[in-house]
Amino acid sequence: MSELRYNVLFKEWVIIATERAKRPEDFKTPVPSSSKDTSDKCPFCPGHEGKTPPESFAFREPGTAPNTAGWRVRVIPNQFPALTLQGSEERKTDGEFYISMDGFGKHDVIIESPDHLAALWTMGQDQVEAVFLAYRESYQAMAADPRFEAIILFKNYGPNAGTSLMHPHSQIVALPIIPMVLRQKILVAHEYFEEHGHCLYCNLIKKEAALKERIIFENENYFAFTPYASHSPFEIFILPKEHSSDFGKISEQNCRELARVMQTVLKKLKVSLNGPDYNFNLFSAPTHSAESNYYHWHFKITPQVTKSAGFEMGSGIFINTVIPEEAARYLREAAV
Amino acid sequence: MSELRYNVLFKEWVIIATERAKRPEDFKTPVPSSSKDTSDKCPFCPGHEGKTPPESFAFREPGTAPNTAGWRVRVIPNQFPALTLQGSEERKTDGEFYISMDGFGKHDVIIESPDHLAALWTMGQDQVEAVFLAYRESYQAMAADPRFEAIILFKNYGPNAGTSLMHPHSQIVALPIIPMVLRQKILVAHEYFEEHGHCLYCNLIKKEAALKERIIFENENYFAFTPYASHSPFEIFILPKEHSSDFGKISEQNCRELARVMQTVLKKLKVSLNGPDYNFNLFSAPTHSAESNYYHWHFKITPQVTKSAGFEMGSGIFINTVIPEEAARYLREAAV
Repeated sequence: MSELRYNVLFKEWVIIATERAKRPEDFKTPVPSSSKDTSDKCPFCPGHEGKTPPESFAFREPGTAPNTAGWRVRVIPNQFPALTLQGSEERKTDGEFYISMDGFGKHDVIIESPDHLAALWTMGQDQVEAVFLAYRESYQAMAADPRFEAIILFKNYGPNAGTSLMHPHSQIVALPIIPMVLRQKILVAHEYFEEHGHCLYCNLIKKEAALKERIIFENENYFAFTPYASHSPFEIFILPKEHSSDFGKISEQNCRELARVMQTVLKKLKVSLNGPDYNFNLFSAPTHSAESNYYHWHFKITPQVTKSAGFEMGSGIFINTVIPEEAARYLREAAV
Repeated sequence: MSELRYNVLFKEWVIIATERAKRPEDFKTPVPSSSKDTSDKCPFCPGHEGKTPPESFAFREPGTAPNTAGWRVRVIPNQFPALTLQGSEERKTDGEFYISMDGFGKHDVIIESPDHLAALWTMGQDQVEAVFLAYRESYQAMAADPRFEAIILFKNYGPNAGTSLMHPHSQIVALPIIPMVLRQKILVAHEYFEEHGHCLYCNLIKKEAALKERIIFENENYFAFTPYASHSPFEIFILPKEHSSDFGKISEQNCRELARVMQTVLKKLKVSLNGPDYNFNLFSAPTHSAESNYYHWHFKITPQVTKSAGFEMGSGIFINTVIPEEAARYLREAAV
């Protein structure tokens, strides 16, 4: 079982993942990347369902049994989970320096397609909609458990984004704590609401829509742009135009539309940057204060085209080598 | 000239480094690493002083002229600076969303040795002391300029730590703002001081010294340990035992001793982990409140043995796969 430890020097939680732990001497050589990731060995490919933990749920052909082929999207517990349902969410503390709790949580993998070589930017529209409906269903199931405080949905695409597994997949983690990044976003948005009486993100969308220079794509319900102070080249935010703090409340119809918007934006990245490695993240409100007038859920996409290093680690300041307005124009004009 | 932009969604600064900017289409293929980094082409090697901007200062043999060979440690402006002395530290704002300032600051490189193949963990003791005396001198010179708010000293060693330049070097950046990571450390330390009447770090050192299980190395004046909630495997903090918030006030004698302690700890990393890539960072107090009873400067060393990805980006929560007490024992027992 892993452990959550609180860093009193920074007021943040860290996961000590003993489930994934290696002995110290195993770090002597770099972790090898699985260059031999072919479909015959892949635990995510159809026919290999027995190589993974039993599925949480799947969208599958009528009449097919769980944990057999015939699925379109399959959600399974991560075989090397950062957190598990073992243990309890009780906190332990010495009253000053050492605060911890069991590594309590849930860590699932969303297998996005039976096709080992599929990718979000090239798969059919129906398929990418099924992926996002699986995100919605996973999110809602985790959010319904009152022991969790926040849900982290993310995708790592390619080795520079932190995955060596080629088969298309995303991950979702339910946490028993509110993570630092979300806490900071919530605090900032709450403060803005107190001072202005409106949602920070709603107001920013209006402003960006009027200025136009950082828009990448928009339609009736969604808005995609590069933030004024983007952390890295070609960073993209996707937000619903209508105020909403809780991703879990998204309608099926809006969820399908979101999937199409995400695919459009990813296609623009693929065309413009030759299919870069990327991460994306969902930032939805903490589950116990999910509905609020001050927070606004959003996806952030981070193409991995540069590396951060000591300066960023020592300061928290990102160095972005592309002017966001230029990045936006480049992506906006990419025909897909 | 680069630009500093404030992210109102997170209350943090970002550097848009147009000095280093590439056109968007240049990101189509990964940035190549300079595998042909040999001493005959190296701008940091002796005899090539003309290939770099004129030196800020150097420790050199008596009688040798600036910007010629004969130096032991050489400090030069970075040829691709994140920030420069052009422009002003005046802030521009629309009053709500778009806050910026010129990319005003200073960005120097400390060339640690004339020897292209030298490294901190193998060079002579005199040489590593000279490097740290150069850190001290660079830090003091930057801190004396009232236009700067904070100074970030860091080292990237090896490609996984973000450098492809082999010639041993560190970097130092003077900022016109207080970066987020330092602000958070200061806030937390100040709060602790108000509540306990003692420095958080001083109290933690006492506690860790008594517990012993996370100590890596200590001598009369310095203490090296793995934090209870380390972000990553084999993370190391080095702190002065005597309370001090301002690295700039370090005595020459203590600075030499710090250099030897750093080398001892790095040697332990080299022996234990086969010479991993690593970063280190200095966290000293902001220059305008440099002397305080609540903050305590420290170095943090981060061996680059694992990768962070979407989960960390979406949450700010690090996943550490080695139990800190085991990492400490492994490094403590490494004979050097």
